[in-house]
Amino acid sequence: MLAVHLEGGVVTVKRRAVPKRKPGFALIRLLAAGVCNTDLELKRGYYGFRGTPGHEFIGEVVEADRSALVGKRVGGEINLACGDCEYCARGLGRHCWHRTVLGIVKHPGAFAEYLTLPERNLHVIPAGLKTEEAVFVEPLAAACEILDQVKIARGERVAVMGDGKLGILIAQALGAHGAEVVHFGRHKAKLKIGGAAEQRVAGAKLPRMAFDTVVEATGSAEGLRQAVGMTKPRGTLVMKSTVHGLVSLDTAPVIVHEITLVGSRCGRFAPALRLLKSGRVNVAPMIHDVMPLSEAARAFDRAEERGVLKVLLKPD
Amino acid sequence: MLAVHLEGGVVTVKRRAVPKRKPGFALIRLLAAGVCNTDLELKRGYYGFRGTPGHEFIGEVVEADRSALVGKRVGGEINLACGDCEYCARGLGRHCWHRTVLGIVKHPGAFAEYLTLPERNLHVIPAGLKTEEAVFVEPLAAACEILDQVKIARGERVAVMGDGKLGILIAQALGAHGAEVVHFGRHKAKLKIGGAAEQRVAGAKLPRMAFDTVVEATGSAEGLRQAVGMTKPRGTLVMKSTVHGLVSLDTAPVIVHEITLVGSRCGRFAPALRLLKSGRVNVAPMIHDVMPLSEAARAFDRAEERGVLKVLLKPD
Repeated sequence: MLAVHLEGGVVTVKRRAVPKRKPGFALIRLLAAGVCNTDLELKRGYYGFRGTPGHEFIGEVVEADRSALVGKRVGGEINLACGDCEYCARGLGRHCWHRTVLGIVKHPGAFAEYLTLPERNLHVIPAGLKTEEAVFVEPLAAACEILDQVKIARGERVAVMGDGKLGILIAQALGAHGAEVVHFGRHKAKLKIGGAAEQRVAGAKLPRMAFDTVVEATGSAEGLRQAVGMTKPRGTLVMKSTVHGLVSLDTAPVIVHEITLVGSRCGRFAPALRLLKSGRVNVAPMIHDVMPLSEAARAFDRAEERGVLKVLLKPD
Repeated sequence: MLAVHLEGGVVTVKRRAVPKRKPGFALIRLLAAGVCNTDLELKRGYYGFRGTPGHEFIGEVVEADRSALVGKRVGGEINLACGDCEYCARGLGRHCWHRTVLGIVKHPGAFAEYLTLPERNLHVIPAGLKTEEAVFVEPLAAACEILDQVKIARGERVAVMGDGKLGILIAQALGAHGAEVVHFGRHKAKLKIGGAAEQRVAGAKLPRMAFDTVVEATGSAEGLRQAVGMTKPRGTLVMKSTVHGLVSLDTAPVIVHEITLVGSRCGRFAPALRLLKSGRVNVAPMIHDVMPLSEAARAFDRAEERGVLKVLLKPD
């Protein structure tokens, strides 16, 4: 099979044997996969990664213990949990002490013609949902994670900072939840895809201590500092995007105003699938390119271009 | 009257007119006041402060609208709230948009023979409690604030980092609440005053991802970074001490482990007074000096000495 290989910042495509599934695992034939910022960071050396990346995917089950799964179109949660540790016992396999992570930590990723995942990680994709759009279930689940962590009232004004892929999905997910989203970004066209009630292009003065809930998804240290300034006393700032290297932060306003900062990562697929199926999010305008697996190197370059949102990979 | 005056890093003592109380305010004669780290920071230029500092105090009411207060020994909450804004409506006058703060923001402080405060800020000190110990009600309330913000189960192992005045009070307050406190500090003698179940002097390797709740009270950037590393996935880090200037922080573990950082400042006096009265905290060993108001400059120097905990000021 063809499989993307990442090593020392170079993306190549290799011929590999089709992986063997272990008991409890399904063998999945790739239908489509999405290039995520994390993949671009892996390329830049994050985690010292070497191997096959890719964790946003939709595929068709080829082999599985549960025969009912075979032939089904599925997405898969990316954390492979041990099932036995304290986090697994709490239903938080995403934080399992012994987890591996599809295409990120010690489990070959989805940028390959075939991949394996535990059957319990799989979610069958509803018939009405297009494969290209279903690929967004993973990042949309990360956006929905906010609603699992923080109480946001319907009608509450919430600031979302950043109009990259994740910022857009967050604006859509919180909007669908009923929040009145004020979306801050740099690009009018991207903000438009987010569809927030209020869209503010950078340049205007940012409101000070104005929101009980602020979601930071700019991926920049400056964005995080601005987010602190925009959060009201006793408010909550959701930290959604990793910033590379060390962030210089003034902790005084966090303490004086008793702000709560909530780190937020992966989420459950079920609410994200419901959202995608409901049509209350609109991910299609985020697909900026669809390229064959064999051209993965070019797809990575394309995904890194300014202004480009989602690039999908499909088997040749 | 004698009043301490702080300006340009210099502590002087001046003669001033006894302040006039406004309606709703009490005029209070000072009995004892405590020098807090915030006072030392005000001296160093924090907030561009100029005037009479001091916010930890016990005094006797001389004049008040409510005659029942006159002659009573009282402590006072330090935030003077407007009573009308959204935070006041939520019972959070400590975050009032229009607040002034005793000895910190636009209200003359307690390092003076007389001070004024709104009557609603005052708490009568129970008869059995010594004035010198009752002075700790304000910082102890700040320690107790943690229990108002974060759920800590009785028997839960909680890490407290820092063995300064605040760290010791936090260790005592959380211990009295029933937590199993593991107290990390630099000085065996100070840790001993904290009385925690486990006391660990710096030098040993810090446990990684070991506590669901970590309280940071070191006042250092390094302490905050260490605290992040000690917090378990989905755990909570209470940020209790301001660090001066910018803190360089790696936000990746906060996001990957979905850690919640909770800024924490002033607290309610009622639980702190109950604790002091119960005898389940032991503040007396923290009093390292008692000096007259007229020697405030020397008292500030003394409070800044290494190893010195609380310095009290008393009228001459």
